[in-house]
Amino acid sequence: MPERESVSRAPRRRSERARTAVLDATAALIEEVPYARLTVEAIAARAGVGKQTIYRWWPSRGAVVFDALLERSGGGDAALPDTGDLRADLSSFLRASAREMTAPSTDAFLRAVTVEILQDEAVALQYRQRLLTPQRAAVRQRLATAYDAGLLRDDVDLDVLVECLVGPVAGRWLLGSGALDDAYADAVVDVALRGAIR
Amino acid sequence: MPERESVSRAPRRRSERARTAVLDATAALIEEVPYARLTVEAIAARAGVGKQTIYRWWPSRGAVVFDALLERSGGGDAALPDTGDLRADLSSFLRASAREMTAPSTDAFLRAVTVEILQDEAVALQYRQRLLTPQRAAVRQRLATAYDAGLLRDDVDLDVLVECLVGPVAGRWLLGSGALDDAYADAVVDVALRGAIR
Repeated sequence: MPERESVSRAPRRRSERARTAVLDATAALIEEVPYARLTVEAIAARAGVGKQTIYRWWPSRGAVVFDALLERSGGGDAALPDTGDLRADLSSFLRASAREMTAPSTDAFLRAVTVEILQDEAVALQYRQRLLTPQRAAVRQRLATAYDAGLLRDDVDLDVLVECLVGPVAGRWLLGSGALDDAYADAVVDVALRGAIR
Repeated sequence: MPERESVSRAPRRRSERARTAVLDATAALIEEVPYARLTVEAIAARAGVGKQTIYRWWPSRGAVVFDALLERSGGGDAALPDTGDLRADLSSFLRASAREMTAPSTDAFLRAVTVEILQDEAVALQYRQRLLTPQRAAVRQRLATAYDAGLLRDDVDLDVLVECLVGPVAGRWLLGSGALDDAYADAVVDVALRGAIR
């Protein structure tokens, strides 16, 4: 029995090692090379596995890159703080988002994943389901607490309000149209919150 | 003299024909094939020119694609209407933007250019200078008229306000996080404008 167990487990351990090596190699290459040169061949070479090993588990480069982002972000659905001060909580959140997006390693990762989202509907769907929806639910939850406390207008659509907070920051990141600093995050919170508050 | 003139003009005419053929081929291919397969070779073949002809005028695929978008958009800096009703004017503008972004041919073009912006800083710079800045100046101008008329809060930053209008719509287009319809455009205008109005 122990013999048999070890036999059945060995491939799984090997698989897990290979999976981790592939995701680590992908993360390293995203920071090191222009994304156009980040091929499945390059990932396989860096991870020390065959190209076929990658294609056995992932349908495309985009799927590997998405899993590497998921591994790195740990799900990304952390709840927002609730200090009782809605403006301060949203400001903390949006300042932190802006700071994280502009950190070189995150920036490179987000660029890579966005390139895939734009070209691969399967990656876009995974992104919406596994990262975007939980992230937005966390912001929405903080807004819902304020709504339930009667702080926001009755007719405010909380999903629209979430996008009015994160959309301008994401747009400035994507287009490089200005500084992504604390002052910008606060200015966006001011407009969105004044537009939603009773 | 006439002889000489025609000699000096012929190459220019040939160049202009080739340039138009390249941009037309690029526009056609963007709608027809996945962008990952839209190579400079494919553009050259479709345009009936040599690959070197393309590289003589454009440094990269991204530069060709950007020029094709520029040709198509005609600059994109049309002034917003001013009916005297700020909310209605912004709503018309944002509804039209949302509708245009989701039209299949525009959607394909914007995806292609965004892929390039994310990976090619030269294209990103061209995009900001030649399309984004004039487009935003047009929206800002309409807001400035309202500001000068005393409709908006003194402390409102008009550039931030422009991004609070266009950012959520662009974000929804990019991530496919919901319907890009008139109701969404109006909801964004409501939040942004209430947040800015006196």
